[in-house]
Amino acid sequence: MDTSQLDAAIKARGKEFFTSIAGEAPSIFNKGWWTGKVMDWAMKNEDFKVKLFRFVDVLPYLDNGDSLSRHIDEYFVDDCGELPPVMKFGIKSAGIAGKIGGKIMAKSIRANIEKMARQFIVGQNTKEAVHSIDKLRKDGFAFVLDVLGEATVSEAEADARLEEHMELLQALGNAQSKWKPLGGNGEMDWGHAPKINLAVKPSAFYSQAKPRDFEGSVQGILDRLLPVAKKARELGAFLCIDMEQLDLKDITIELYKRLRSHPDLADYPHLGIVLQAYLRETDADAKGLVEWAREKNLPISIRLVKGAYWDYETVKAKQNGWEIPVYTVKAESDAAYERVAGYILQNADICHFACASHNIRTISAVQETALSLGVPESAYEFQVLYGMAEPVRKGLLNVAGRVRLYCPYGDLVPGMAYLVRRLLENTANESFLRQSFADESDHDRLLEKPVTTAQREAPAPEPAPSCEGVGPFRNDPAIDFTIEEARRAFPEAIAARRASLGRTYPLFIGGKDIETDDRIPSTNPANLNEVVGEVCQAGTAEIDQAIAAAVTAQKEWARRPAKERAEIIMRAAEIAKERIIDLAAIQVLEVGKQWDQAHADVGEAIDFMEYYARDMLRLDNPRRMGRAPGEINHYMYQPKGVAAVIAPWNFPLAISVGMCSAAIVTGNAVLYKPSSLSSVIGYGLVELFKEAGVPDGVFNYVPGRSSVMGDYLVNRPEIGVIAFTGSMEVGTHIIETAAKIQPGQDHVKRVIAEMGGKNALIIDDDAELDEAVVHTLYAAFGFQGQKCSACSRVIVVDAIYDRFVDRLVEGARSLKIGPSEDPGNNMGPVVDVSQQKKIKEYVEIARKEGTILVEHTAPAALDTDNACYVPMTIVGGITPEHRIAQEEIFGPVLAVMRAKNFDQAIEWANSTRYALTGGVFSRSPRHLEQARREFNVGNLYLNRNNVGALVERQAFGGFKLSGVGSKTGGPDYLIQYMDPKVVTENTMRRGFTPIAEDDEWV
Amino acid sequence: MDTSQLDAAIKARGKEFFTSIAGEAPSIFNKGWWTGKVMDWAMKNEDFKVKLFRFVDVLPYLDNGDSLSRHIDEYFVDDCGELPPVMKFGIKSAGIAGKIGGKIMAKSIRANIEKMARQFIVGQNTKEAVHSIDKLRKDGFAFVLDVLGEATVSEAEADARLEEHMELLQALGNAQSKWKPLGGNGEMDWGHAPKINLAVKPSAFYSQAKPRDFEGSVQGILDRLLPVAKKARELGAFLCIDMEQLDLKDITIELYKRLRSHPDLADYPHLGIVLQAYLRETDADAKGLVEWAREKNLPISIRLVKGAYWDYETVKAKQNGWEIPVYTVKAESDAAYERVAGYILQNADICHFACASHNIRTISAVQETALSLGVPESAYEFQVLYGMAEPVRKGLLNVAGRVRLYCPYGDLVPGMAYLVRRLLENTANESFLRQSFADESDHDRLLEKPVTTAQREAPAPEPAPSCEGVGPFRNDPAIDFTIEEARRAFPEAIAARRASLGRTYPLFIGGKDIETDDRIPSTNPANLNEVVGEVCQAGTAEIDQAIAAAVTAQKEWARRPAKERAEIIMRAAEIAKERIIDLAAIQVLEVGKQWDQAHADVGEAIDFMEYYARDMLRLDNPRRMGRAPGEINHYMYQPKGVAAVIAPWNFPLAISVGMCSAAIVTGNAVLYKPSSLSSVIGYGLVELFKEAGVPDGVFNYVPGRSSVMGDYLVNRPEIGVIAFTGSMEVGTHIIETAAKIQPGQDHVKRVIAEMGGKNALIIDDDAELDEAVVHTLYAAFGFQGQKCSACSRVIVVDAIYDRFVDRLVEGARSLKIGPSEDPGNNMGPVVDVSQQKKIKEYVEIARKEGTILVEHTAPAALDTDNACYVPMTIVGGITPEHRIAQEEIFGPVLAVMRAKNFDQAIEWANSTRYALTGGVFSRSPRHLEQARREFNVGNLYLNRNNVGALVERQAFGGFKLSGVGSKTGGPDYLIQYMDPKVVTENTMRRGFTPIAEDDEWV
Repeated sequence: MDTSQLDAAIKARGKEFFTSIAGEAPSIFNKGWWTGKVMDWAMKNEDFKVKLFRFVDVLPYLDNGDSLSRHIDEYFVDDCGELPPVMKFGIKSAGIAGKIGGKIMAKSIRANIEKMARQFIVGQNTKEAVHSIDKLRKDGFAFVLDVLGEATVSEAEADARLEEHMELLQALGNAQSKWKPLGGNGEMDWGHAPKINLAVKPSAFYSQAKPRDFEGSVQGILDRLLPVAKKARELGAFLCIDMEQLDLKDITIELYKRLRSHPDLADYPHLGIVLQAYLRETDADAKGLVEWAREKNLPISIRLVKGAYWDYETVKAKQNGWEIPVYTVKAESDAAYERVAGYILQNADICHFACASHNIRTISAVQETALSLGVPESAYEFQVLYGMAEPVRKGLLNVAGRVRLYCPYGDLVPGMAYLVRRLLENTANESFLRQSFADESDHDRLLEKPVTTAQREAPAPEPAPSCEGVGPFRNDPAIDFTIEEARRAFPEAIAARRASLGRTYPLFIGGKDIETDDRIPSTNPANLNEVVGEVCQAGTAEIDQAIAAAVTAQKEWARRPAKERAEIIMRAAEIAKERIIDLAAIQVLEVGKQWDQAHADVGEAIDFMEYYARDMLRLDNPRRMGRAPGEINHYMYQPKGVAAVIAPWNFPLAISVGMCSAAIVTGNAVLYKPSSLSSVIGYGLVELFKEAGVPDGVFNYVPGRSSVMGDYLVNRPEIGVIAFTGSMEVGTHIIETAAKIQPGQDHVKRVIAEMGGKNALIIDDDAELDEAVVHTLYAAFGFQGQKCSACSRVIVVDAIYDRFVDRLVEGARSLKIGPSEDPGNNMGPVVDVSQQKKIKEYVEIARKEGTILVEHTAPAALDTDNACYVPMTIVGGITPEHRIAQEEIFGPVLAVMRAKNFDQAIEWANSTRYALTGGVFSRSPRHLEQARREFNVGNLYLNRNNVGALVERQAFGGFKLSGVGSKTGGPDYLIQYMDPKVVTENTMRRGFTPIAEDDEWV
Repeated sequence: MDTSQLDAAIKARGKEFFTSIAGEAPSIFNKGWWTGKVMDWAMKNEDFKVKLFRFVDVLPYLDNGDSLSRHIDEYFVDDCGELPPVMKFGIKSAGIAGKIGGKIMAKSIRANIEKMARQFIVGQNTKEAVHSIDKLRKDGFAFVLDVLGEATVSEAEADARLEEHMELLQALGNAQSKWKPLGGNGEMDWGHAPKINLAVKPSAFYSQAKPRDFEGSVQGILDRLLPVAKKARELGAFLCIDMEQLDLKDITIELYKRLRSHPDLADYPHLGIVLQAYLRETDADAKGLVEWAREKNLPISIRLVKGAYWDYETVKAKQNGWEIPVYTVKAESDAAYERVAGYILQNADICHFACASHNIRTISAVQETALSLGVPESAYEFQVLYGMAEPVRKGLLNVAGRVRLYCPYGDLVPGMAYLVRRLLENTANESFLRQSFADESDHDRLLEKPVTTAQREAPAPEPAPSCEGVGPFRNDPAIDFTIEEARRAFPEAIAARRASLGRTYPLFIGGKDIETDDRIPSTNPANLNEVVGEVCQAGTAEIDQAIAAAVTAQKEWARRPAKERAEIIMRAAEIAKERIIDLAAIQVLEVGKQWDQAHADVGEAIDFMEYYARDMLRLDNPRRMGRAPGEINHYMYQPKGVAAVIAPWNFPLAISVGMCSAAIVTGNAVLYKPSSLSSVIGYGLVELFKEAGVPDGVFNYVPGRSSVMGDYLVNRPEIGVIAFTGSMEVGTHIIETAAKIQPGQDHVKRVIAEMGGKNALIIDDDAELDEAVVHTLYAAFGFQGQKCSACSRVIVVDAIYDRFVDRLVEGARSLKIGPSEDPGNNMGPVVDVSQQKKIKEYVEIARKEGTILVEHTAPAALDTDNACYVPMTIVGGITPEHRIAQEEIFGPVLAVMRAKNFDQAIEWANSTRYALTGGVFSRSPRHLEQARREFNVGNLYLNRNNVGALVERQAFGGFKLSGVGSKTGGPDYLIQYMDPKVVTENTMRRGFTPIAEDDEWV
């Protein structure tokens, strides 16, 4: 059959299908009921839809009437003054009002939403599930059971999930003997299918899965999934491995292969996997699986879905600067579905196919394709979701005879999350169900060949954006460890660096390498015997020399057009992009950064250069002030002169490059003093700027001992700007020292100081704990807590304290400690022995002041004698007066504070001398608004962790004693390196003035 | 005759006129000649036109070949790489090139331009003039002679101008006997007109005329014009008083009346005045003159012109925020001309009429109107400009028989300025001559009734602009002293203030008046016996009290929406506007400001409030950073807390209000310490802010002795911002003190310090001296030089040194010293005895270091014992190493420095520790560009004085030791009072995120 014949047949079958269900509609669109009314309103009103979905999401956390009423007010009443009429539907006593009325209303709303959720969930426990299944099977439907659950954030939770699955399987096994097989004879449904069918989510079985650690992730999941698979085999059940977010896709495919080919399972065919048609990679993945099956001679089973994380994948890719991995036009996914389904059906001899779709065009296409290929019925089946698309399942039962319902089960916390996904799906403009049953679109349009639709709807290509001849700023993409090359690149780069460790690094002054006798070795904190490099140290004579070179070079440099300066800095960014893995690898060795964090540090360095270069172009455009004719006023900026940049070791490239490139691009010359703990990384700036074409003397590399040349540098009268990032003690000392006008000094020094933090995350009583736990752990222990932005206090509102802290503690214990070289580790050594000592002292203070909840040390197998490990520590019972609540520790020590309510949480969060970062996990609109106003920090994060600020998007910096000056990577930053100048020209001569375009003439 | 009949007759006559001159064209449009070619090109190319006119203007200053060639390059070659072909026209040897070619070319261009100028000028000296007149009279034309001259910037120059006029009259008197009377018998031309006719410009006869000093100006001009008038009478000549810019119009009319009714001249009718039809006031002025003539029974004569300063009047009004005084549509002026001419002709019995126009419609209208009214020919005449509109004068001679040519005479420096005006007139799109002879417009259109044209061309009314519900920022209008009420308001307001002097001013803390026993009297520097007020002083206890009040009040204030805060500050601005004269009057008394400067100070205070309020609205709008979906990043600002504002006395309201309103509108609370020399003015802030609704405790008035509470205030840990304006010594002390973190302090203090200046004006060798002299005097001696922006060094390029300095010295000697209450005085007393002493010491230093050129003291008649006068001092022979060239004097002491060239001038200008303001007078495009780049000051002014910065347009402030921080009244100012904050919200929940409008979605 050629494709046009096939298409005609598909359309004919589709029409027939529509006819067979004429007049019917899914219950969710039934406006006679609350659900249908609300869905209708949500489809008409985007704002209401957002609020509704968010409210549904938080609902299970609202465990008392007050909390429920308050959230109803916040979500639905605060903006409009009263509850939208649609929400009141179904409330008996129309006359009720006021507080009591509100409570009754709230109870009614909760009841309605729970009823709505139950529509999609087969039961809240095993008993309910089995009961519902009995009924479904009586109606002729097979099932696949899916266990809803919260995210697995610790190994303890993974164990519990394993237990839960085993119990469920056992219960189903117990029940199956009562079930008559469907449509056929023998013990199997339809003669070939196991009656028990269980879907499992890999992420439920292992808490530490991550793309960076491919092998560890596969193994971690496999360890717990294998017993489940064996149990399934024992019961003669089908086990299907669900597909989740893209970042676990390749891990899941590998997992499937290992399981399918496991010696204990290789002869058991009832093991399936899911592919998602919306992923651009799915054609290749399907082919890979089929070819693997043929190679191994192992029959496989694939369920093909469209994919349920379209928004998530799109947003995540956008946020990380990645190619969008999903098709951006819905019809492209539909077309891909038909294509991949066709491929699988062509290989029906080795690959069983489960068609999971509510789309009548898709279903018809699968049917007709199977028919045309002569695929036996036993080789494919149809699946639809429980509680949705009733007309489709009915129609399917009529025409195909075999329909399996995908039945989630579990309690309401994860149930609500599932409900939101279903609601989203049904209210999306592109939803086939919505179009078919709510919008009543034309059937011809609905049955159109999807490639045709896709072509018509393809967006016009956007014109390439430009600004001053360069494109707009974009953050350098985060590294995508789902890509194998990215995973492989790190060990290779680290090995390459390791091969050349230990060389001597000279100073770089006035374009010349200068060696001094005073040298400091820089060592690997995971192995103090490994010397990363010997770094020459500048004394006062070298500082004098560098200042002289800078003063001279700066004059010429300032005269260069800003565009040229910006181009040179952008060239440096290009070079850094080319060497990003190498520049990250040295960080793993010199300061013990994890792969991703090291990569992000270089990415941030690139971002600073790209952003500041562009911002300089913006600032270089003189702004015309006023519009009076006869005068032109231009507001512009000029460089301050010579900048001293004093940098820390914790973001060893990013912060150094940020401060230096800002100074340079604005036309200043720089003396750069890196931290002695990261001077080798700091030398990277010499290479970058030299190669990019920064003239001799404009950038000078002068590492040195603070005791020898620190104050000397700060005191020199030639210094115009001091850019410092480091501790509060050193920062305030510099501020005080620099304020004194020295003999021969003809200006006031500008100090830009980024100092410490004592950052808090607040966990509100309605926080989404799946996210709050993971984000808190990352913010507290990522890079060993050695970030000025790191979370060192988590303030938990009493009502949720136990639930949160229990999960947090277990989560922490599940994290792996060991060298950052190993991608499986979450926490490495701290940067040096003196930090190690200081942090250990703080652990002792913590022990005295509170109760140690976690003291998680490096595994015994690790040689920790020659390394700077400290225990990952969580201490409870801390209140604001404790030192642990006030002092910056700069290590993996997290204080947990129990606040009686949100107000107190905010008050405590603000109770330190610092104001750098902070975060709030809350689903209360009012509390989020309150935090916006009252949480005094430079960078506040709502519903995410408080680290990893990106240039521009999260322009970074704090106030109080956390910093002076404006945010790095933000629009007010560069002007600190310059002096503003207004040039006013009287353009009127002899009563005559040219008219400027922007004059406000008569 | 009704108007439509009249109009028909006018059109018929106009057509006849056109016919009579068919085929003829004015020589300036003759493209066979250089002038015509160049004019043609200028009309087609606006950019070339601007360059050409500017080059013509500077030409007479280019007194050597190098200078000439350089300017030709700069004006015409630099941009396009070669001389425009049109400029090469007429150069014989087409083959010449290179340097010699350039020189020849340059000479040729100069010759061409001088030839062009001579076309409009009857002669460069008396002899040439008389010779030309002989010829004109032979051709049948009468004349009126106009003496071109540079601006009169000193009394010595006024004396010379008087002398010049007397000599000219004498020469004409000697010549007139040879002249046969025109067209008639008797001794008079046409039987009734004097053969000699002289036009005089009032501004030539008195250097100190200004609207503010109406009576002094009238008298000053009259003193020198009376001898000229008497001489004219003696010779039987006609004397016409020309009308210049609007600001002298009422003075000129009054002058005319005084002269006309002078006992020695009342019986002599040959005295005329000019009115300008383009002024909206001219109908009323004509009526006023005619009625005055009738009342006094003195025949008068009015020449009516369209007006030659349209651009100037429009630009000046726009720059000052005044109503445009001229008609904005050319045809409205034409219509006004016909209307006013008609009125004069109706009063021909008492008012002789001279119709000065090249517009054939206008001429025809006058002719027909006169005919229809039966006005005798002796009662009106026609005038056209010498060298222009030859066809018109020929046609007029044919039809009217009596034509007078307006003949400028004088040398080429003022001649070129005159040429530019004529070129402008002829190349304007609206020019009747251009339309008639160059563009060859339709005659019907040219003869159309001008009211009809005006109606058609009237611009559509602009929609009212708005921003955030408030209009865009506009500077408060400067005071217009041409308006009589404005002149009268000052003495009244001063008298009113004087009536209530001497009261006690309490502190104002937490909304309460607080009296202390320690009080300081504030006195009038022009009369130390006059106590302006007794001001209570705050001690440390009061500072504690005020800080406590501020800390409490600030919390609430910061929570108020920015819009509310902005509205309160705008209300304060409204109140200040209502009281502007009163608020200015107290400055005259307390610190000795001149009327205009005091008014400008209040205007600036208003501007600060209006600007900062609007800028706060702008900054209050959170900026979305990045466009990634799923996250919303808002960049915003929050107040720092409590601000200490330490203000100076020299801009006693403006600077105080600026710093305080910036702090308040951004949400801070303020402790305001005014200078003890202007504490009564400072108390004005209490009244303004209280009435406007600033809450108790947000603004606290705490004058006090620096020795008692200065450091105490700066050291208090609660202070978040210190805004200081004053001396460098105090400023750097504050910076140093504030940098120390005090016990209990949880932030770094921000110091915003505006400090001193040692500001230079550079006079380049091609500077327009008419302007340079006046601007330098104003910048150096306005408000006694007590401005941080004041000019205290004038650096003069050697080649122009003598010409400039001679005029400068004479100009200074012509300025009047005395109490600022008297509007005739240019310079008053300095602010107090200690300043007086310090300045006098500097005069002695000046005497030692250089040569005193001017030491101009208060007139002997003045009681200077009880006042703080110092001599206005100009010292020559100063070079950069002198103290007078380096130290801020803050008084009327001007150092003159002779630089060998422009490079050295820039180098010297930059040779101090200050970098506040500066200015350059130059007509060299390259030098102006060089100054833009290399003249290191915060506010640079090209071709104008370096004082009087306006809010927004000249956002103000310097660097080096002149200041820290960003410019007041500029876009970077307010952020200094705030901390930046970024709030990042993760908007994705359960994989679902609302799409924001500015998301960069797929």
